[in-house]
Amino acid sequence: MTTEIINIGDELLIGQVINTNASWMAEQLNLAGFRVNQVSVIRDDREHILAAMAEAESRAEIVLISGGIGPTRDDITKHTMCEFFNTQLVFNMDAYHDVEEIFARRGYPVTELNRQQAELPENCLSIENKLGTARGMWFEKERDGGGKTIFVSMPGVPFEMKAMMTGHIIPWLKKTFQTPFIYHKTMLTQGIGESFLAAQIDDWEKALPGHIKLAYLPQPGIVRLRLTGTGKEEQIIRQQVDDEINKLESLIREYIFGFDGDTLEESIGQFLKERNATLATAESCTGGYIAHLITSVPGSSVYFKGSLVAYSNEIKKNILGVLPESLQKYGAVSKEVVSEMAIAAQTMFDVDYAIATSGIAGPDGGTADKPVGTTWIAIATPEEVFAKQFTFGDSRDRNIRRTALQALNMLRKKLIM
Amino acid sequence: MTTEIINIGDELLIGQVINTNASWMAEQLNLAGFRVNQVSVIRDDREHILAAMAEAESRAEIVLISGGIGPTRDDITKHTMCEFFNTQLVFNMDAYHDVEEIFARRGYPVTELNRQQAELPENCLSIENKLGTARGMWFEKERDGGGKTIFVSMPGVPFEMKAMMTGHIIPWLKKTFQTPFIYHKTMLTQGIGESFLAAQIDDWEKALPGHIKLAYLPQPGIVRLRLTGTGKEEQIIRQQVDDEINKLESLIREYIFGFDGDTLEESIGQFLKERNATLATAESCTGGYIAHLITSVPGSSVYFKGSLVAYSNEIKKNILGVLPESLQKYGAVSKEVVSEMAIAAQTMFDVDYAIATSGIAGPDGGTADKPVGTTWIAIATPEEVFAKQFTFGDSRDRNIRRTALQALNMLRKKLIM
Repeated sequence: MTTEIINIGDELLIGQVINTNASWMAEQLNLAGFRVNQVSVIRDDREHILAAMAEAESRAEIVLISGGIGPTRDDITKHTMCEFFNTQLVFNMDAYHDVEEIFARRGYPVTELNRQQAELPENCLSIENKLGTARGMWFEKERDGGGKTIFVSMPGVPFEMKAMMTGHIIPWLKKTFQTPFIYHKTMLTQGIGESFLAAQIDDWEKALPGHIKLAYLPQPGIVRLRLTGTGKEEQIIRQQVDDEINKLESLIREYIFGFDGDTLEESIGQFLKERNATLATAESCTGGYIAHLITSVPGSSVYFKGSLVAYSNEIKKNILGVLPESLQKYGAVSKEVVSEMAIAAQTMFDVDYAIATSGIAGPDGGTADKPVGTTWIAIATPEEVFAKQFTFGDSRDRNIRRTALQALNMLRKKLIM
Repeated sequence: MTTEIINIGDELLIGQVINTNASWMAEQLNLAGFRVNQVSVIRDDREHILAAMAEAESRAEIVLISGGIGPTRDDITKHTMCEFFNTQLVFNMDAYHDVEEIFARRGYPVTELNRQQAELPENCLSIENKLGTARGMWFEKERDGGGKTIFVSMPGVPFEMKAMMTGHIIPWLKKTFQTPFIYHKTMLTQGIGESFLAAQIDDWEKALPGHIKLAYLPQPGIVRLRLTGTGKEEQIIRQQVDDEINKLESLIREYIFGFDGDTLEESIGQFLKERNATLATAESCTGGYIAHLITSVPGSSVYFKGSLVAYSNEIKKNILGVLPESLQKYGAVSKEVVSEMAIAAQTMFDVDYAIATSGIAGPDGGTADKPVGTTWIAIATPEEVFAKQFTFGDSRDRNIRRTALQALNMLRKKLIM
């Protein structure tokens, strides 16, 4: 089944909003066995919407459309849908009750704009929306050459769209179509660049069978390797992809930190929970970002006690108790200071493990000796404290992110030993 | 000049990577006066690339393509370009020297894969890449109906693409075309939902002249209102949009925290710097995210001293000195505890201002009395401490983000008073 996504919204085309809807929708469709062929982002404009829908219809059996059906004046999608499907808006009492309910819950009266959202195209199947006032719309259209295309229109607000996709659209699509089997498995690596990975796994890659494909997905600090197998027999495809993953694993074991949706912060959380151990951080250059990653995991309060973001030398001395001599002699970005920070966090928060960072995130603060990107990371365990120096790049954001990932992976490696 | 963006990459279509390139490219093009008509995300596949390029050619004068020219085996774009432009690859000595230089800097030998990156289509103008091994390619193609379309292909790695766009492609496009004038101005609001904003500014919106358009851009915790004016006379358009912005400002003043690319963390930084004041945070439910936002601003070490992430009651008591009675009597998520946290952070970090948060981010930890989303925020200033309760929603990520934005805006309002 060829599937296309159309995201409507001028805001996406002037770059003020990042199109996270497309990637989320694509991921869900893939997991359900629907291959996404193309994503088109278009203007919130009658003619453009009509043209894009006609083009998508010529290529795809399923067209999912998001955006352009909010309560405000810049949304014209619903009227254009009526034109494309040759129908008209009618007032839908169920939809109106939902709108009323949402407003009652919030303790506000229904506005006229929101009342109009209960008007829906006559020939669509409407899709309920418990989180917002715009319903989804499911249309089926016969094609000139025979067969039909399913069009589904939904709101652009991410959490409304997600609830609608998960609760209604994906289950309905699965019921309607029989899909070929697609199996993805992604290996996550940290601490090695794309071309060096490629050189290390070249022989293995060349020997891959034709129906299994490899893709490199680099991000700051991380390279993901995705294997995709396609075929009729689910069990065989799974087995073949898993076998190839095992071979690959043996080639680059030291760089792998997980699979698929794993994150370093989640695996660390798992390890700590399993051993009833606790963690804290003392952060300088990462400024709380490591604590943020760790606490983004639900339930992290079981093992994470806290963090001291020490963004000045005074705080390092007065609160963490870093020795003034160490700061003077070696500087804040040094093995000595970062090690003292890790040990201090361990004591202060009374935890088993501690992470400490100190570096020059940039753009200012670099010297000939210690250029921007110079970073020290220390890990304190119940047995020891160890520290390592890294030289990252010029970008502040990337340096913060790479330092955090490197630090989490250093801790992870200790935890699995 | 009609411009289209084509992003090549299977990883974008299975949803493992969010297409941040498109929004960044679109923003830069808009700022330079090029209107982006469509973004198409397509597979890394010869036929699909050829079809998408032909379609874009029929609609646009400028087609910018990113992705598909890295060093690894899954990239086939360069060969497809040769086919589309009817040319062949030739070895480019300049490009090879650049590759050699990059590898020398990293202290590694050039791999065969990277050597091949110095092979470029014969009829393109190649664009240097100081940050990676894949050059950009600028093609010009006569169209059947007359006129020509410019195609530019660049790497998909964001920081390489960005350097190439800023350093070469945008300046070359500006030199090549005369563009109509487009002026955007975006007003940033916090603390009010989209439809309530719409109701408040309805009369003003209806009276807008036809060449000035309004768009609502909601995000968790923030609604942005973008005005776009288009026309020939730069000065007149700017003046008209600015006049409308002034009218709008008077209608919703209390919700506005900035314009265009402003962020709460940057405006706070500006205010603090201007008055030589300092800041710290004591974070429970936000887990370091406020400190992270603040320290993501270059130069923030001038005014930000640090944060204590107190993720357990023990840490709140033992390190921050929150009274055990307060925790027992009112619970950690209370006015009393969050106020004590703010005062403690002010003392501990020896700062003028402090932010404290305590809430139930979810998904667990809610009670009938204090459901998930219940959040207290306190601000300590040199004169006073004040706290406010909020009820956010069910999503952990959104709760953390909304709490952080609300807290930063509470501080900002104090700072401007």
